Amino acid sequence: MLQFLVLTAFFLLAGGERIVRFISTDGNTYFGDAILPANTTDAFFSTRARVIQGDILGNFTVTREIKDITKLLAPLPSERVRTVRMVGLNYVSHIDESNMTIPQWPILFYKPWTALNTPSDPIPVSAGYQTQGNFTSSMDWEGELVVVIKKAAYNITDDEALDHVLGYTVGHDVSHRGWQIDRGGEPQPQYSMGKGADGWAPWGPAIVTTDIIPDPQVLNLHTKVNGVTKQNASTADMIFGVKHLVSFFSMGTTLLPGDVIFTGTPNGTNLGKAVPDYLVNGDTVEVGLENVGTCTNMIQYVNTSSDSVNSFFRL
Amino acid sequence: MLQFLVLTAFFLLAGGERIVRFISTDGNTYFGDAILPANTTDAFFSTRARVIQGDILGNFTVTREIKDITKLLAPLPSERVRTVRMVGLNYVSHIDESNMTIPQWPILFYKPWTALNTPSDPIPVSAGYQTQGNFTSSMDWEGELVVVIKKAAYNITDDEALDHVLGYTVGHDVSHRGWQIDRGGEPQPQYSMGKGADGWAPWGPAIVTTDIIPDPQVLNLHTKVNGVTKQNASTADMIFGVKHLVSFFSMGTTLLPGDVIFTGTPNGTNLGKAVPDYLVNGDTVEVGLENVGTCTNMIQYVNTSSDSVNSFFRL
Repeated sequence: MLQFLVLTAFFLLAGGERIVRFISTDGNTYFGDAILPANTTDAFFSTRARVIQGDILGNFTVTREIKDITKLLAPLPSERVRTVRMVGLNYVSHIDESNMTIPQWPILFYKPWTALNTPSDPIPVSAGYQTQGNFTSSMDWEGELVVVIKKAAYNITDDEALDHVLGYTVGHDVSHRGWQIDRGGEPQPQYSMGKGADGWAPWGPAIVTTDIIPDPQVLNLHTKVNGVTKQNASTADMIFGVKHLVSFFSMGTTLLPGDVIFTGTPNGTNLGKAVPDYLVNGDTVEVGLENVGTCTNMIQYVNTSSDSVNSFFRL
Repeated sequence: MLQFLVLTAFFLLAGGERIVRFISTDGNTYFGDAILPANTTDAFFSTRARVIQGDILGNFTVTREIKDITKLLAPLPSERVRTVRMVGLNYVSHIDESNMTIPQWPILFYKPWTALNTPSDPIPVSAGYQTQGNFTSSMDWEGELVVVIKKAAYNITDDEALDHVLGYTVGHDVSHRGWQIDRGGEPQPQYSMGKGADGWAPWGPAIVTTDIIPDPQVLNLHTKVNGVTKQNASTADMIFGVKHLVSFFSMGTTLLPGDVIFTGTPNGTNLGKAVPDYLVNGDTVEVGLENVGTCTNMIQYVNTSSDSVNSFFRL
């Protein structure tokens, strides 16, 4: 019995965290270790969390204080995420549907940090991305495993990589195919205009630490649009796994605590579809990662005047 | 005589600034309005500056206090530059030498903020970018006009654009052609690995305000390698001018105070050369912009162990 208690205590201490950031009933924002509801590992449905004290990118402690969750935010405030790295063409199934070839080295691109969004707020689509004359709005979904860096990395090896990782969450690489491909595809790459708008990178709600997920390459990844499954694959199918992505991107480049890496999407997007069903105003997209959680965000057309500045990035 | 004095005072007040950031003899860092030496408008050679109080991205005042300059830094600390936007293929002469086609819309890509460097520090080239077996180090230069944003911009028009601009400086888009093109060129864009390493974006030293440069499209741009002129063109040749770049990039995306835009390079790089003369360890590159100034940085091979983290980005 004593042995059982000791073992239980050990697992409670060493079992890792599902780190969330949330607004509580007192209106204040906290970091917490999500208390999961029965029968799910998805912190999106958590209503309570144990308050975390300290810096989740440094030293922190999970306290015994429990707070109610009023709203789940992105796991880090956007200003703590200095660089958002994205991986292109990292699943053979997606490369096939995109009619592209398998890359020999990971394909890296960036989103500006202003693209980050919470796991539940709308994805704003401003006038330039809506249908205008012959130019069709072609908003598409890409569900992805996201890596969060906890320790600076420079020229590290694959074997060292996971020591620099805090944990994993799920993210949505919102993509406008018209701006990505038709208006500036090959030979001119234009990932940036097609993917970088404010709020086009929902992520969270929980960073699930490497204690809970020692191997990120065995997780099911899914995307649903208005409740209908569109993507369903395993992270085992990634061409370049998390370890290699982290080490490769550290080549001559310092990865910093709080940096995130969206690791690419499997098949099931609209690329290559004869009759695409692009996202339109009011559509809801759920991206989910096994043992990690989901983000559910609605497409929302916005028509902001030139003088007003979008506030989505502040979330 | 009174009229003359009043006019002189007016010009001193309304004449704009050449904003520099520098370490002075007391070891402290200041913002200042560079006092130009005789016969040059290049703040790189300034040895004194009038101290600026306040926030150069908000309200600031040029004081009468003059400090000696020990070292010129980048005009903003890297942590104030949240997003570094880069423009590809924006001069017809460079598109021709690259064997590419003229884009219909501006080509946007990003460097991580860790790429920023001072106007005088070495450009580090770590092992992955040095010659290894058959893979040749192919470090190339790209001198560019750089725009600094002072006021948030979201869905603004070309006519509104310059109201959001603090001023201009010169920058160097350091580029490794092997990683940019050979290892992941078309159909997979790989601007990021070829251009984003730590310290690969020297800029400064002075942000010359729009009062001094009302029209950024009339300035001579040059690059010299070890004193030999390699690039020499006018910003009049840009396909997309500053006004349109700022408004276009604000489409659905908030540009924030401190964001910078490197606006592309003219011909004179190694692209398309039958016998390229790529940069090697010890080579010195000067990029210069008329009425603005120069950056002069040396290529420096580094062989950092996996445990040490580069500090170039902290400058």
